This record gives sequence, C-alpha cells and structure tokens, in this order.
Amino acid sequence: MVGIKLQKEENRKAFLDIFPTLADEVLAELRKYNMPQDAYEWTKEMLYYNVPGGKLNRGLSVVDTIRILKGDAVTDDDIFKASVLGWLVEFLQAFFLVSDDIMDSSITRRGQPCWYRKDGVGMVAINDAFILESCIYIFLKKYFKSTDYYVDLLELFHEVTFQTELGQLCDLITAPEDNVDLSKFSVEKHHFIVVYKTAYYSFYLPVALAMHMAGIKNEAAYKASEEILIPLGAYFQVQDDYLDCYGTPEQIGKIGTDIQDNKCSWLINQALAKANADQRKVLDENYGKKDKTCEAKIKELFIELDIENVYKKYEEESYEKINGLIGQLDESTGLKKAIYTEFMDKIYKRTK
Amino acid sequence: MVGIKLQKEENRKAFLDIFPTLADEVLAELRKYNMPQDAYEWTKEMLYYNVPGGKLNRGLSVVDTIRILKGDAVTDDDIFKASVLGWLVEFLQAFFLVSDDIMDSSITRRGQPCWYRKDGVGMVAINDAFILESCIYIFLKKYFKSTDYYVDLLELFHEVTFQTELGQLCDLITAPEDNVDLSKFSVEKHHFIVVYKTAYYSFYLPVALAMHMAGIKNEAAYKASEEILIPLGAYFQVQDDYLDCYGTPEQIGKIGTDIQDNKCSWLINQALAKANADQRKVLDENYGKKDKTCEAKIKELFIELDIENVYKKYEEESYEKINGLIGQLDESTGLKKAIYTEFMDKIYKRTK
Repeated sequence: MVGIKLQKEENRKAFLDIFPTLADEVLAELRKYNMPQDAYEWTKEMLYYNVPGGKLNRGLSVVDTIRILKGDAVTDDDIFKASVLGWLVEFLQAFFLVSDDIMDSSITRRGQPCWYRKDGVGMVAINDAFILESCIYIFLKKYFKSTDYYVDLLELFHEVTFQTELGQLCDLITAPEDNVDLSKFSVEKHHFIVVYKTAYYSFYLPVALAMHMAGIKNEAAYKASEEILIPLGAYFQVQDDYLDCYGTPEQIGKIGTDIQDNKCSWLINQALAKANADQRKVLDENYGKKDKTCEAKIKELFIELDIENVYKKYEEESYEKINGLIGQLDESTGLKKAIYTEFMDKIYKRTK
Repeated sequence: MVGIKLQKEENRKAFLDIFPTLADEVLAELRKYNMPQDAYEWTKEMLYYNVPGGKLNRGLSVVDTIRILKGDAVTDDDIFKASVLGWLVEFLQAFFLVSDDIMDSSITRRGQPCWYRKDGVGMVAINDAFILESCIYIFLKKYFKSTDYYVDLLELFHEVTFQTELGQLCDLITAPEDNVDLSKFSVEKHHFIVVYKTAYYSFYLPVALAMHMAGIKNEAAYKASEEILIPLGAYFQVQDDYLDCYGTPEQIGKIGTDIQDNKCSWLINQALAKANADQRKVLDENYGKKDKTCEAKIKELFIELDIENVYKKYEEESYEKINGLIGQLDESTGLKKAIYTEFMDKIYKRTK
C-alpha cells in the first residue's frame, strides 16, 4: 500500500511538472501577436493563479485511464499526451470556476481569494475565464492536429462545455442566493444539475479523452462508458451534498454552507419530497436564510425526516447499481472494468 | 441605385428570416438533453434578446463575399450556408457584447437595456454569454461536418475568438474606467487593441469564412486577405473613435462618451503624442472624468493640437494605402478585388 501511495505521489508530481511548459506555450502565442508587456504579465499571473492549484483529480484520471487501457504497452509519449489532455480538463475547470465564483459571489477558492476578488482584477476575470477556455484549443491544435482523433477531441470538448453550461444555467435559475423559492426545486431538477454541471466534465470527459487516445472508435463503447460514469458522477455529487451537512469540518476542510446559501442540494430535495404540509412550512421559512437558528431548524427537520437514512439507502443502491453496470461491461471493445472500479474505490463511502 | 438599395434590403430580410430556424435548432438540443422547462424558456428569450438585434453588417458580409467569390455560379445552398456562417459571426459578437457590457458596466445596447441589467438576469448573463459561444460549434457540426473545410472553420473561430479576447484584455487593463492613468496609453497599444478587439472578428473572419466555403486552400490568399482587412478594420475603428467626438448625435445615433469614460481612443493617443508638458498636464487632469467641464477642456485641447487635421491626414493615408493593397491583389488565387472595394465603399468618409 505504501508503494501505491508513493507511486500516486510521483505521478502527481510528474503531471504537475508539465504545467510550466504549457503556460510558456500560451505566453509564446502572446509574444507572436506582439501583445503589450503588461497584458502579457497579467496573463502569466492569471494562468498560475487559476489553473494548477486544485486537487488535480480530473486531470490525473486521464493519465490513470490511459495506463489501464494500454497496460504494459503504454509509452512515455502516451503519458505525456494524456497529461496534456488532463491539463486541458483542468483548464476547462479553471474557466468554469473563475466565472462560477463571480456568478455565486464567492469569497475564497482553494485557500486563496477568488481571482475576481483580487485587487485590480474585478470583472476583467470574465475575459480571463474566456482566455482559459481558448487555451484548450491552442493545445489541441499544437499536440493533436496530426492525429486521426483530432476532430473527436474538438467535438468532445465543445459538447461537454455546452453540457456544463446548461447545468450551470439550471442551477443558477433554480437556486438564486437572493430569492428562495423551494417550489422551483425538485429531485428531477437536482439530477439534471448534478449530471450536467458536474458529471460530464468531471467523470465522462477524462475517460472519453483517454479512450480516443487509445484508438477506441466504437460508439457503443463511449455509450457504455457514459452509462457508468454519469451515475457515478451523480453519486459523487450527492455525496458532496451529504458531506456539506453531515461531514465534520475536519473531514471536509470547510464549514458547509449549502443550507444558508439556498443550494439546490440533494438533501433539501429529499426533504421536500418527504415533508408534510407543516414540515414544508418549516422548510419554506428557514431554508436559504443567512441565520444560524434557521439553519439549525432545517437540520432538525432533516433528522425528523430521517434524511440520513434516505442517504444511506441511496448510497447502497447506487453502489449496487454502478457495480452491476461495471460487471456487465463488454471488454471486447477495448474498455477495461478496472477504469471504473478504480473510480469507485476512490469514491465509495469517502468522508472527504 | 434604388435597385441596389432594394436588393440590399431584400438580402437583409432573407438573412434575418433564417434566425428562427437556428434558434429552434439550439432549443431542440436542450429538449434532447431533457432540460427543465424554465431553463428552456430562459434560453429562448436570451437568444432572441441578444443575437438578432444589431445592424448585421458582419453576418451579411459573409453572404456578400460568397456572392462575389462565386459570381454567377452561386447557388441557393451557397447562400444558405453563407448565411449560417454569417449568423455564427453574429453569435460570436453576441457572446462578446453580452460579456463586454458587464465588464464595462454599460447601461443600454441596441436601444434596450443590456441583458445583464434586465430584471432577474444579473450575473447569469456570464453563463448566457458562454452558451452563445457554444452555439457556434453546434451549428458548425450540424451544417459543415461533412465538408472538407470543417476543421478549418473550427480553427478559424477558435483563433479569432482568442485574438478578440486578447484585444479585450489589453483594452480593459489599459483603460479601466475607475483609474485614469494616461501613461498606460500609447499609439502602439491603441493599434493592438483595435486590431485584436475589432478588426479580426469584424473584417477578417467574415471574408475568411466565405473563402473556405469557396474552396480557397492557398494559405497566401488568406494572408493577402488579412493584409488588406486588418488595416481596413483598424481604419474603421479609428473612424469610430473620431465620430464619437466629432460626429453629431444625429449622425451617430448617440452622444459620444469616450472622453468621460477614459477610453483608449485614437484621438487621445494622438493628442498625447503631440502634447507639450503643459498640455499633457491638462490631459492628465481632465481626461476620464465624469464632468462636462473637464470634457470641454479636452475638446479644446484637441482643437489646439489640431487633432481633426491629424485625422484627415490619417484618413487620406489609410485610403491610399488600402487602395494600393487592393490594387496589387493577385486574383489568380480565386480572390476578387471587389470584395475589398465593396467594404471600402461602405466605410470611406462615412459619417455614421
């Protein structure tokens, strides 16, 4: 086990070491365009501030997947190319996070002020987010133009970007922080939001990128992969919602604020589905208020409605269902069950 | 002449008639994804509010260019495809305008409140801008995937989008409305901003799109086209800056506010280049102030420095230079001088 942990740490380090090369390539583009020096320096700071500071799970999973798909035949060039694609997922995420933080009026991100909150940045951050997205296509052209799956990569990034934007739109208009209206919430809407806002770009995209690299052309294989990864991603996000309320600050590294922030979380939707008229009144009167007492009332009601056990049941059912799907996977298309079991091992019953 | 005007009006109407089809296709994508009804309605309103209300010059110039390039051989299918590409330029522009208005704290656009200023929209407009951009790639896939220039179109949109973002970044950090610092201005920076923020997407992009459609593969032809259209686009933007100060409200349909808004305009950069120490002091003390008296002092100094004649000289020189470039154009690559002379006729000595 220590060996695996060390290996993971080494893989992470190798992945991180590639970032400065990519940043330099973006900056070389700006030089080519004779961009004024202050705008050049701005972009450099913006890239380092927003792209590499996360957990990198999404980016690393492209590399992990290509290792599994190619097995012993994997080459250094494969690892490098998969790392570039992994970084593009991280650029995509940076594009979303920089702009989501503005839309959500967030204060901090990854232990530092959100980019738009930094002195002198403000709304310029919107355009910076666009630049982060544009970087994806600079790198795809540079590293993948000569491959026979270049167009597939372009279309995959376009589609997943659009899907994520649709999820974000639905989230924003369902749960605006300043206008609580629980009649807009529903279990179905919550499902749409978690699938589109999170699951496609965080789970399906990294695996599909590695599949293209591994030469998998069969559309059914992508469909099969999607059919496992989307429920898995949805399950992951439900866990996130659960931990926001039931995880300790030591476990999750922050104090959960979903109830006070009027988030369209899995928990409130389950509560709404189970509540009688009186309980519904308590929910309407106390959810989404910036007030500790109101928050406590919501938590009490969650206990009354036994939401924790609804969650445990959901967790078991999801585990069974996803494992069932993995068990049935047809490996003759080139896919390997290990891709999905590895995700599952990282995620099932996680407490952080 | 009346015949030409009627024809223009008819072409514009035919172009405009295509928009609902395109909007319906985006909405069909949302249905495919089972998007909740309120988010569906939101997107529909957003598309109609932001895409079709402009002058449509950029979109129409794709159609005009394909007519010139193909001459009598032009088909209805060519016109339709060029119209779709024209609308994609309009979608790209809508993406920029919706987000620029937020970054510039603008109040109105095209005679109605800016989208983000509409009740209940606010910062959701950022994500809406993203969706407008994503639409481009939905349509390219739908209408051009089977062509041999599909990848060229994708790469062209990516590159021009990136260039426009770089121009916008430079503009934003050179001329923030709340922090006047004329030492950041320069004729070179102004040139970078107008070329990257405006000329590429407004002039080069529409022509290059039609060139791809017409089957022009020769890279030198694109280079030659760029070498005419970029100076032409820069000249167009300088005119815009000139008219903001010297055009009458009746001519330009608005009251110019560049001086009060601390805009990095062509005029102030010419004034800075000619000013002595005392005059520079007047510029520093009065530019970018929300104050009629300060604005009047700047306008007086422009008269003192004879900026209007500097402009007339620039206009004549630009006209000579661009006409010279058009005259030297090699038509054997499939390009036609008429593409550029038509632009020139619309632009030279315009007063609105």
